[in-house]
Amino acid sequence: MDLFFSKNIKKEKQILSLDESKHCLLSLRKKINDKIWLTEGDGVLYSADICSIKNKKIEYNNLQIISKKINSPKIHIAIAPTKNKSRFEWFLEKATEIGVDEISPLICKNSERKIINETRCVKILIAAMKQAQNSILPKLNKPIVFADFFKKRKKNIYIAHCYDTEKINFKNILFNKKKKKENITILIGPEGDFTTSEIMLSEKMGGTSINLSDNRLRTETAAILASSIAKTIL
Amino acid sequence: MDLFFSKNIKKEKQILSLDESKHCLLSLRKKINDKIWLTEGDGVLYSADICSIKNKKIEYNNLQIISKKINSPKIHIAIAPTKNKSRFEWFLEKATEIGVDEISPLICKNSERKIINETRCVKILIAAMKQAQNSILPKLNKPIVFADFFKKRKKNIYIAHCYDTEKINFKNILFNKKKKKENITILIGPEGDFTTSEIMLSEKMGGTSINLSDNRLRTETAAILASSIAKTIL
Repeated sequence: MDLFFSKNIKKEKQILSLDESKHCLLSLRKKINDKIWLTEGDGVLYSADICSIKNKKIEYNNLQIISKKINSPKIHIAIAPTKNKSRFEWFLEKATEIGVDEISPLICKNSERKIINETRCVKILIAAMKQAQNSILPKLNKPIVFADFFKKRKKNIYIAHCYDTEKINFKNILFNKKKKKENITILIGPEGDFTTSEIMLSEKMGGTSINLSDNRLRTETAAILASSIAKTIL
Repeated sequence: MDLFFSKNIKKEKQILSLDESKHCLLSLRKKINDKIWLTEGDGVLYSADICSIKNKKIEYNNLQIISKKINSPKIHIAIAPTKNKSRFEWFLEKATEIGVDEISPLICKNSERKIINETRCVKILIAAMKQAQNSILPKLNKPIVFADFFKKRKKNIYIAHCYDTEKINFKNILFNKKKKKENITILIGPEGDFTTSEIMLSEKMGGTSINLSDNRLRTETAAILASSIAKTIL
């Protein structure tokens, strides 16, 4: 199954973008009358036929809905971008493959990186979605300062940190969760960890301090393990 | 806690290797009388004091056992090395952080890479173990041809593949496993997947075909997700 991304499948003019058309024609050597699969990244998977190629762009017809996918519950990872860009990009790829729904780059006191290249990050997410034959593209939010994060979100927030305070094992929390279908948010700190005031703020706002492993995990590993644990149990 | 690796902690002469001494003195700026932590990677964690520096090598004394860790059950990942070396190396790092016990590079019919740089791989494992403050170093076996793999191992073998045959969801198998303390082995194929004859051979030898996700996962993602699922449930 060769999956392509389009922002405007439901629009009247059924045309693939130049990038997607290139991938389809040059890398995968598709031709007129070949079948392709399409998604807007919203969980809906379509099939269509290539009917013509104009100005290097593919036009398609016979659009049909093949399936609709909804992740329930949804997993939102709020993560401090790593100092080393490629580690954050690895996280984006793996999170898409595993099936994370939403990603918020989190700007913390100890963050060494406070900006991300959004265009590049979205490209990585789309490539991973296509490769994984997943019809859900994680929503990438704008970077947000730690304290502001709690202005909108109040419920089912878990904060993973390395301080030796009272923490609950994340998998035990999820195993004991009565309403397993509630969406959850997991906060993952930067290389220097959250500060104690950030943890106190999170707890004041209803966040729960969690422990993911006996080992000290890198930022991107913690995020992928937390996503995997949630996917396994919920 | 600054953890160092030594092959010979129990030997009479208590000296760190040149590499480990460099890391300790130059990167972490440790001095005589400073406390360090040591492991052979067998789960035993020691503390010791730096007592002298000779020929750029650290000598230590006051060796004491701090803790002994045993992973139970043990997780063994047999994985086809990826075409792109860095993806395999990423797997080695993450597997160590998550707590995998044994890794076998698997040579399959569709493998595009049939050799690994063992010295480099062990270096990555040791660095990840130290970083994760984990006292268990995964055992890295020699690359083994798929068919030979089954000559030694017969029990609790799970093979993850993308064919549309009868497969059981991996997490459901583990949730229903009565004897949860049995060690398990998970086989992860190369970019082009296992061949049907490899899957048939595995099933003939008692292996169980499993499904890890609705998405099509890259080799290294499948291995990390499988390890995370096993760590979560067992």
